[in-house]
Amino acid sequence: MFILAPDTGLIVMVIQIHPITKLPMIKPGDDLAQLIYDATIGTDTLRDGDILVITHKVVSKAEGRLVDLSSVEPSQAALNYSAQTGKDPNVVEIVLRESRAVRRMAPGVLITETRQGFVCANSGIDKSNVAGTETYALLPVDPDQSAKRIRDRLKELGGIDVAVIISDTHGRAHRSGEVNVAIGTSGLNVLRDRRGERDLFGYELRVKNIAVADELAGAAELVIGQADEGVPAAVIRGYTYRRDESSKAVDLVWPRDKDLFP
Amino acid sequence: MFILAPDTGLIVMVIQIHPITKLPMIKPGDDLAQLIYDATIGTDTLRDGDILVITHKVVSKAEGRLVDLSSVEPSQAALNYSAQTGKDPNVVEIVLRESRAVRRMAPGVLITETRQGFVCANSGIDKSNVAGTETYALLPVDPDQSAKRIRDRLKELGGIDVAVIISDTHGRAHRSGEVNVAIGTSGLNVLRDRRGERDLFGYELRVKNIAVADELAGAAELVIGQADEGVPAAVIRGYTYRRDESSKAVDLVWPRDKDLFP
Repeated sequence: MFILAPDTGLIVMVIQIHPITKLPMIKPGDDLAQLIYDATIGTDTLRDGDILVITHKVVSKAEGRLVDLSSVEPSQAALNYSAQTGKDPNVVEIVLRESRAVRRMAPGVLITETRQGFVCANSGIDKSNVAGTETYALLPVDPDQSAKRIRDRLKELGGIDVAVIISDTHGRAHRSGEVNVAIGTSGLNVLRDRRGERDLFGYELRVKNIAVADELAGAAELVIGQADEGVPAAVIRGYTYRRDESSKAVDLVWPRDKDLFP
Repeated sequence: MFILAPDTGLIVMVIQIHPITKLPMIKPGDDLAQLIYDATIGTDTLRDGDILVITHKVVSKAEGRLVDLSSVEPSQAALNYSAQTGKDPNVVEIVLRESRAVRRMAPGVLITETRQGFVCANSGIDKSNVAGTETYALLPVDPDQSAKRIRDRLKELGGIDVAVIISDTHGRAHRSGEVNVAIGTSGLNVLRDRRGERDLFGYELRVKNIAVADELAGAAELVIGQADEGVPAAVIRGYTYRRDESSKAVDLVWPRDKDLFP
């Protein structure tokens, strides 16, 4: 959005972030894009060039990526990790199935590399906002593909071309607290590479390569996090992203051999 | 900001982010709060309850935290690290002076724990947007104190009570690209602790503790990064932060002995 600064007449770029309210509870098999389209059509909350940020939980639910703990038989490895972390062996079993490596362990903590490559707690599996006392949501199998499907479906339904980001809440090395990051994207370049640009004094920038998809996911969380638990998506308007059909959220993952904190 | 959703009559919370344009080039000794006040007064760009995000570079400049490379004599340690990383020995000397530990080294890369405790490349020293071909900006000595001084001065000048965040651009473990994070704050709780809240199904959240100061710093970068290099600050409106006079950005740093990726 552009606003006219009152004193100078300068046009100033403003970013707006608003929640998508009115989404129903999502169930396996739901057409999430259709539900988002229905919740936004006629309200001007979704337009060409907007960025739609969806928390992965509703994507996982719509895709039926749910596991019931009682259906799980812990392996010997799960029992071992359970003994070392104090975590429920059935939960650990699911975490291990969704991982390709365990990166760190501590009492109550199991940090893995997920099948998709993300380094996060418990392979991203989570109980919150999932129906059933024993049911956990897993990450979408391929969140970048999920984002692309939702984006393509929105184009089909309303001719709207938006960028789509699927977000998750990750802890970090070095810093406490969690932030939302992008685990699936479609339609935008996840990085804004400023290397080669010149600074105020003509000096060439050599290191700036901003993970804008993560900053966008975090910005959306500010709206989602202060809304009711029933708001799983937000729209960012006024950010000029670089359109890109091949850039993906998994591009933001350091391969383990390049990660300085493997 | 609240807007009325046209079809439902529901009031929806919207977050707005806008840049502070019209700031002059900052020099040592400048009263940065006065300059921000002058640039925003009468334009409705700064109001009670807003969050003012300032990139640390202008804070460092105003505080005179600048070092000329030619004034530096590299120590033996700096020469050693320089040989191992291929980095300029005088730059390495400044990096070491601003650090309390070297965390990682690789060709072209020196990741340190800064005197303030942040884990980042080159102790946060940086050449970009600094006048003088050999001049580097250091981090403010105590960015939380810097944020408090700016906040107090804005109160004094205009009776405006805003939260202040001083941001820097950090790389991350596990994920490529950089994001803006909070290195100094005043007036807000840097975390939004949701543990103990109930989810949609009454399940108690056990792990959500969101580093909102970092998400706010990243959100502001979206505006700052797409503006000209001359825009070093942005205002976030519509985010209901928890007021807190004692919470600090350094609270977001894991002590090394608790960091799982030390």
